[in-house]
Order: sequence, then C-alpha cells, then structure tokens
Amino acid sequence: MKKIEHIGIAVKNLEESNKLFSSLFGKPHYKVEEVASEGVKTSFFESGPNKIELLEATNPESPIAKFIDKKGEGIHHIAFAVEDIYSEIERLKKEGFKVLNSTPKKGADNKLVAFLHPKSTNGVLIELCQEID
Amino acid sequence: MKKIEHIGIAVKNLEESNKLFSSLFGKPHYKVEEVASEGVKTSFFESGPNKIELLEATNPESPIAKFIDKKGEGIHHIAFAVEDIYSEIERLKKEGFKVLNSTPKKGADNKLVAFLHPKSTNGVLIELCQEID
Repeated sequence: MKKIEHIGIAVKNLEESNKLFSSLFGKPHYKVEEVASEGVKTSFFESGPNKIELLEATNPESPIAKFIDKKGEGIHHIAFAVEDIYSEIERLKKEGFKVLNSTPKKGADNKLVAFLHPKSTNGVLIELCQEID
Repeated sequence: MKKIEHIGIAVKNLEESNKLFSSLFGKPHYKVEEVASEGVKTSFFESGPNKIELLEATNPESPIAKFIDKKGEGIHHIAFAVEDIYSEIERLKKEGFKVLNSTPKKGADNKLVAFLHPKSTNGVLIELCQEID
C-alpha cells in the first residue's frame, strides 16, 4: 500500500460541511462528484499527497445514510492507494481478511475500489483503490 | 496543513493488532512508544508519506479506554502535519473551531500536538502536529 489516498467522512449536509472544511484547510474543495450507484454525493479537499472526501447520502438506502443513522457524522473509511488492486485482493484474502468486493468496482475519482469488512480490521472500514489509467 | 501525518486507531490489544496490521501492510510496525501522560501505548506503521498509529489504553481512565467503551475499536483521530502549530491554533480559533489545547502539548513520536473538538468538526477528532526540532 503506497499511501493513504484519502479519508472518507460521512456528513449530513455537504454544502455546510464544504464551508467547514474550507475553513479548516484554508482553501476550498477542488471538485464535487456524484456516485449514483453508491447513493452518494462527494466533495474532495487536498492535503498534500492526501485527500479528504466528504460523503453525503443522496437517498435513505445509501450506506452513508445508514452509517449516520447508526453512528452519527464522522470518519467513514480510510482508503489506501495500491499498485495492483487485483493482486492485493488475492494477497489479503489469503491473509484472512474479509474482502467485500472480490471484483473491484468503479468508485469516485476515477478509481477501481474494493472494501475490507471492518470485522476483520479492528473496526476500520478500509478501501483499496487504484487509479484507472 | 501539509498532509495527513497519521491516523490513530483505538485497539483493545496492541499485540494482536500489530499482527493484524502487519498482515494488512505486508510489513511490521517500526516502533512502539508509551505516552504515560495520555495513558496509551502506541505502535506505528508506515504507509508511504503517512503513518498509522495503533493506540492501546494502559489504564481504565485513558481516553482510549473510554473511546472503546463507547464506540468500540476503530478510527480515533486524524492528525494533520502543520508548519507552525501556534499560528494554526490561532487561525482555527478565529475560524470558530473549538481547540482543546490552546497551548500545544508533547505527544507521541516527538511531536507538539493540539486537538480540535469533534463537535466543531463534523464528528471528527482532529489533531494538529508539528515535529519538535
């Protein structure tokens, strides 16, 4: 795993949180993207080599809506950049991690992504992501 | 804020979690450090320009023990590296953030640190940290 690619933060109101995180970072978000398949609208902030992704649910069935219902707003996942997501998935399965997406899927920000179940990772939802060429 | 310096993860058993995260990253932690004033034992893993800090409570009054009692194991905080922690604290106070340490304190990994209250940051406990020269 090459680095923390981004941290995903579940928020109730993307517009308000964009203002909040703009104040925090001293600069605005640099893009907004909707991922219809996941039921989320996202915005991205840059912090050097890393990103912060804010996630707002676009429907009540969205994983983000369910997360906020259960735990409130806060950190939702950590995403690590990987060189080869297919080989990482195989390696992690062999190590005993529960991989939620045996076949990576298309995520936000032009990435192939796969998640590890938090039950197998100390309660942390981990995303693997690889830039699509 | 220059980058995500580290992500802090609250764990029940540091020894077991060190094994788990070694499998995840494909390499072992590179150091262990106890911060007696905070009631924590920590271990560090490297992920490119970023670190993962595992935190185990060393007494029941430790903030980490209380966090796990309330929320279970999982992501505890995000730490951002800053150039000048004193001016960042002043800037963020003016922006309306609730800074928990008006005067930065000595944290793990040879850092001066200060925390922002999660109530003012969408439920995210944010640490500012600056390397001590």
